[in-house]
Amino acid sequence: MNYGRVDATVLAALRSALDSGDVLSCAEDLQHYGHDETEDLAFPPEVVVRPRKTDEVSRVVKVCAEHHIPITPIGGRTGLSGGALCVHGGVGLALDRMDRIVEIDERNLQVTVEPGVITQVLQDAVAAKGLYYAPDPSSKGSCTIGGNIAENAGGPRAVKYGVTRDFVLNLEVVLPSGEVIWTGANTLKNSTGYDLTRLIVGSEGTLGIITKAVLRLIPLPKENRLMLVPFNSATKACEAVSAVFRAGITPSALEFLERDAIDFTLQHIEGLSMGIAPEVQAHLLLEVDGNHGDVLMRECETILCVMEAHECGEVLFAETAAEKDALWKLRRNVAVAVKAHAIYKEEDTVVPRFALPDLLAGIKEIGRTYGFRTICYGHAGDGNLHVNIIKEALSDAFWKDELPKAIREIFQLTVGLGGTLSGEHGIGLVQRSYMDIAFSSTQLALMGAIKRVFDPHGIMNPGKVLPA
Amino acid sequence: MNYGRVDATVLAALRSALDSGDVLSCAEDLQHYGHDETEDLAFPPEVVVRPRKTDEVSRVVKVCAEHHIPITPIGGRTGLSGGALCVHGGVGLALDRMDRIVEIDERNLQVTVEPGVITQVLQDAVAAKGLYYAPDPSSKGSCTIGGNIAENAGGPRAVKYGVTRDFVLNLEVVLPSGEVIWTGANTLKNSTGYDLTRLIVGSEGTLGIITKAVLRLIPLPKENRLMLVPFNSATKACEAVSAVFRAGITPSALEFLERDAIDFTLQHIEGLSMGIAPEVQAHLLLEVDGNHGDVLMRECETILCVMEAHECGEVLFAETAAEKDALWKLRRNVAVAVKAHAIYKEEDTVVPRFALPDLLAGIKEIGRTYGFRTICYGHAGDGNLHVNIIKEALSDAFWKDELPKAIREIFQLTVGLGGTLSGEHGIGLVQRSYMDIAFSSTQLALMGAIKRVFDPHGIMNPGKVLPA
Repeated sequence: MNYGRVDATVLAALRSALDSGDVLSCAEDLQHYGHDETEDLAFPPEVVVRPRKTDEVSRVVKVCAEHHIPITPIGGRTGLSGGALCVHGGVGLALDRMDRIVEIDERNLQVTVEPGVITQVLQDAVAAKGLYYAPDPSSKGSCTIGGNIAENAGGPRAVKYGVTRDFVLNLEVVLPSGEVIWTGANTLKNSTGYDLTRLIVGSEGTLGIITKAVLRLIPLPKENRLMLVPFNSATKACEAVSAVFRAGITPSALEFLERDAIDFTLQHIEGLSMGIAPEVQAHLLLEVDGNHGDVLMRECETILCVMEAHECGEVLFAETAAEKDALWKLRRNVAVAVKAHAIYKEEDTVVPRFALPDLLAGIKEIGRTYGFRTICYGHAGDGNLHVNIIKEALSDAFWKDELPKAIREIFQLTVGLGGTLSGEHGIGLVQRSYMDIAFSSTQLALMGAIKRVFDPHGIMNPGKVLPA
Repeated sequence: MNYGRVDATVLAALRSALDSGDVLSCAEDLQHYGHDETEDLAFPPEVVVRPRKTDEVSRVVKVCAEHHIPITPIGGRTGLSGGALCVHGGVGLALDRMDRIVEIDERNLQVTVEPGVITQVLQDAVAAKGLYYAPDPSSKGSCTIGGNIAENAGGPRAVKYGVTRDFVLNLEVVLPSGEVIWTGANTLKNSTGYDLTRLIVGSEGTLGIITKAVLRLIPLPKENRLMLVPFNSATKACEAVSAVFRAGITPSALEFLERDAIDFTLQHIEGLSMGIAPEVQAHLLLEVDGNHGDVLMRECETILCVMEAHECGEVLFAETAAEKDALWKLRRNVAVAVKAHAIYKEEDTVVPRFALPDLLAGIKEIGRTYGFRTICYGHAGDGNLHVNIIKEALSDAFWKDELPKAIREIFQLTVGLGGTLSGEHGIGLVQRSYMDIAFSSTQLALMGAIKRVFDPHGIMNPGKVLPA
């Protein structure tokens, strides 16, 4: 597509679209908004606008529609698939000033938020009223609800409570025409017309800009128990995952960390220490939550039986809040550790959970064939395995030319196991060339046609999700 | 639209599309497949085909596409919005012979089914393995999974476990072109492209024909407790609903029945009896479930406190399985009783749950103004109130000309309270003319364009969901 440029006319129109002066165009600002957490990629916009309300977003979009300028919605810039990168320049629409919690509706257990609210801020605000917003991506301290919805983010608690999608009731969306709609109703059930709400969830900013969200809340569980379980066999650890559910337990987190993930994190994140026997190959981190401590203890006992039946090592129970925090810090910092200390690529494979051992073994085999190391960890209860491929001594030529072939093999394996490309990170920029592995031309044509229904001129976050 | 007719050429093509002879065209068969449970409406197809496998469905659809014949998928014919009525004649595609449970995957807690499996049959089959498929529409003994998915059916357990949509992982769909796709992957999480799965769920057979479904299962709860709580004020009963959740309890059912609903049911359904004090105006039916009897008792105590704070009468605990069955029989037979003994129209209003008292009061007020009686009951925990409007002595002219105005007022009230037209029955034929109350022309235009993406020639269940 040929897009218009952000020239003086467009700049003036953008400025007048906002009630206050939040149009940024100095190089430093463009650089700041030009990257997220995806590898080391940087695609700065030509200009950044920072609206404070829906009406301003609508006016900005209308300016872009008139001049055929690409618009890329930008949230907390914590994305791992490049969804917020302005690959065609244009307008970077930063939603960080639309960060109000509009209303916590305690009578209906709902909350209305603007997209720029940070996930942790929302969780804390509703927790203060005894309520729970469960989705908790590892980046929850800096990611935003708008981005979470756009990517259909998950996190450790999804295994019990569901992903972001399962908490979204209704969305206010500015369409690529500048028109504003609500996608549904503020109700727990809705069988009224096509489900526009869930079409927007996970559409990665390619169908419109989320400017408000009504989210479901649940009563806050009063207690939890957390345990770390070592295994001398990563396969045994993966097999134990499926067995937990078969024993009738739905844990509130069931995370897998292979040996390298913990070693890498202990090595690179300050303030963490733990003695791990040399023969340990993997850990499961299991949490149960609820309102009754005695029940949680009984659930832990059941889990212990399952773990022992799968030849676990000595289980570490977190006895105090500080011990729990330390274990979660370990888990949540794996990605940070890898990112900070290695050039890497991260894949977000997901399979039916029993296929996890096969997925892990297959990935290691592909790594051996191509000669790269992977650090694997993730939300095993959901069958969602994050695969960090480490560059280390590999050549730039290999990284650029050979690695995509290996990644293609990893995704072919994943899809062959009944899985798909992304469990919670989205496709964005960096996985779009693999979409043909998960979808036929018929499926992709349907998605492309849906895109054109919403965005006939292709201005909304172009270059994302669908293959070129 | 001008559609082709099912002439001798088309009939021959349909016959040769099936491997065995399941093309029905005698008047009796057409009559049988020409109605569901929606009022007394009957729209027989010109011919009924009953395929046994996906490939046959595909070939039938291709014949219809070639000759521009309308196709209406027909499931258990228990629908309440006319989704299965062949309003433009054409082919009635009955899925009752595609009724296999293909695989219960205990390792992944998933089940693959054909669309004609009866919901109760599925529930029983997985319960035998300690697993739970929670959605349980009142018609679960005769409705089918395909229809449940098409209408996004709910039922009493949705308040804790979610609606049909929340259990669907992946769908095999025959598109209006005859092409066959899977909508997603067999994974618990999926952020890979647009969510075609949830676009098909609730699309009421207008975008394609569901020929297989992969559904999520959960561990079967071991125990439950059931209680019936009378109130002298329907408003107090509604207010108590919201308070239960605020007390931190998520019941596995929270049903509301106004006095008339119980009276009507006791009067018309054999084998039910119950003494109800004259001053009682409404009941709540509450169930909690789980694995620990002591916890359920504690939850019941909390619920009792909430009920008493809302001035309930004497609570009836179901002590035995027989008593539980009797209470559920009472609840599940309200619609049957009304249907069997009155000409009526049923609306499926849904609001945020705290708005329930206002909704109920407003509906009664509209009834007084227009001069009709309503019997109201439903899934109060979800804010989903079924409104049965009884014809009784009203004139045919009123029923035809005045009642639609009253229904319009009911829906305007519902939408004004943050709700929408249908919580679980779908829009189908009978509510489509009210869609403008819930949606703007922009929203409807999006839905219409999505319909044309899937079905450019408008052959798939025409005359449904979207307004004419």
